[in-house]
Amino acid sequence: MSYRDRLHAAVLAKRTPALVGLDPRFAQLPAEIRDRAKRRATSDAEVAALAYEEFCCRIIDIVAPLVPAVKPQAAFFEEVGPAGTLALWRATQYARSAGLLVVMDAKRGDIGTTAEAYARGYLAGADSASAPWGADALTVSPYLGPDTLEPFVKVAKEREAGIYVLVRTSNPGSGGYQARKEDATPIYRSVAETVQTLSAETNGAVGAVVGATYPEELVELRGKMPDAPLLVPGYGTQGGTSADAAAAFHADGQGALVNSSRGIIFAYEKKPALRWEEAVEAATRAMIADLAANTPAGRLGK
Amino acid sequence: MSYRDRLHAAVLAKRTPALVGLDPRFAQLPAEIRDRAKRRATSDAEVAALAYEEFCCRIIDIVAPLVPAVKPQAAFFEEVGPAGTLALWRATQYARSAGLLVVMDAKRGDIGTTAEAYARGYLAGADSASAPWGADALTVSPYLGPDTLEPFVKVAKEREAGIYVLVRTSNPGSGGYQARKEDATPIYRSVAETVQTLSAETNGAVGAVVGATYPEELVELRGKMPDAPLLVPGYGTQGGTSADAAAAFHADGQGALVNSSRGIIFAYEKKPALRWEEAVEAATRAMIADLAANTPAGRLGK
Repeated sequence: MSYRDRLHAAVLAKRTPALVGLDPRFAQLPAEIRDRAKRRATSDAEVAALAYEEFCCRIIDIVAPLVPAVKPQAAFFEEVGPAGTLALWRATQYARSAGLLVVMDAKRGDIGTTAEAYARGYLAGADSASAPWGADALTVSPYLGPDTLEPFVKVAKEREAGIYVLVRTSNPGSGGYQARKEDATPIYRSVAETVQTLSAETNGAVGAVVGATYPEELVELRGKMPDAPLLVPGYGTQGGTSADAAAAFHADGQGALVNSSRGIIFAYEKKPALRWEEAVEAATRAMIADLAANTPAGRLGK
Repeated sequence: MSYRDRLHAAVLAKRTPALVGLDPRFAQLPAEIRDRAKRRATSDAEVAALAYEEFCCRIIDIVAPLVPAVKPQAAFFEEVGPAGTLALWRATQYARSAGLLVVMDAKRGDIGTTAEAYARGYLAGADSASAPWGADALTVSPYLGPDTLEPFVKVAKEREAGIYVLVRTSNPGSGGYQARKEDATPIYRSVAETVQTLSAETNGAVGAVVGATYPEELVELRGKMPDAPLLVPGYGTQGGTSADAAAAFHADGQGALVNSSRGIIFAYEKKPALRWEEAVEAATRAMIADLAANTPAGRLGK
């Protein structure tokens, strides 16, 4: 099975392409989790790491029956130091054991055997034990060149894992290099061509990150990369809507995961009357309903 | 003091711009280190992590009197999982305590507050305790856009730390996106312009990675980024020579670090008659002499 086949099966089983981003930030965690961590550890790093682990595992308990995948953001765990990376590892193992696909958002990229070391460390694919970090897929930065994607592709193919190459990101300044005004062919198109070629060769082990915040380019890029699974950030807090994300999908509702991080995991900040878990569950269900109503994802399983 | 001032002081103190890359690979470590690690731990991950830590610390003992800085390659530590990241942390602390600057080669990049999390986690700068990973500088990938460099620059400036932005990398396929044939202005030039602006604004907190394997572009880029400290990979095993790297320097011998990883840390593979530490020391001294003879670095302290 290819990564794309594994992904499509997971999306079909939950009948939604909603992806929940795990972006823990200590100051925003529920007070009960912060307080308990403070009673269990002494150093700030240990406190944060314990809190991140508990928070992510409890989020996973809430969303595992509802969505096919989660996306841990490595930066917030690494910020805490070695204790944080251990928390990332534990949360990832927990997500896998809950039946979720794990898309590790670490935006790695390097040359030759160094790239291969990242790939071997993160891309577990079908067998969660085959890589220490146990991810089904990894986000990858292409700036170093097309040759530097090859080690990731090789390992992904061997392990039924996937990579999502950054093509057009969701941030306000993403055009600065990806779509310079003076370029006849913006660089994101060159990267998209590479992704399509690699994706066709690997039955969809290679996908692309394309933000919902540039909907016209999302239309164009879905057309240019018919074989590539898309990972669509920018929905919700960053301003992208389900209508903006609709173009990422094929007619059958497959072809894309749409991510929301803060809009789900910190949903309780806007719903102080609810228990925090209830707010997280309600926000997840609202996103699923929104995607079903306003994108081809509504046709999944029909 | 800016990062550049701290760097220049360190380079002047050792009278060399030689940077030693810490890229541990288990199969290539000295047998005594592998064997001892196998007797101390049971799991493959723990064995590798113990071996990487001992190897890096012993390399640091050898090179600390000779060079100003080391460059751990995060990928090889992360490949091993959480135990590997703990070994990376320990090796970094050890290097700092030995008086070395630490350039963390992790090629991080992300948007907004996520980029800031990486910056706060890695960039310790003048006070090694101000970030868990304790680095003086971090390599950063620019693909996500100029706006995504800002959080790194802000933290670097606050902490007297530095970043090295990938501009023109040393791998064979680096031109694929960085220097496309159809571009009137290759993207590496746009990135170089950003780097020069940021570097001038920060007294040299922002530098650039420019490979020794493209010597003509190294000449051009030194000219375009007069304020930026350069990090020059590709010397030695990758085929770049000291003559190729010479253009990275200012007339006084400052302005660049030239990296060698495998050529130094695995020097014993080519000198089986020597003790491994002797081979590492000899290779370090040979690189220092080569740079002094064939680049402006020979003028340091004169």
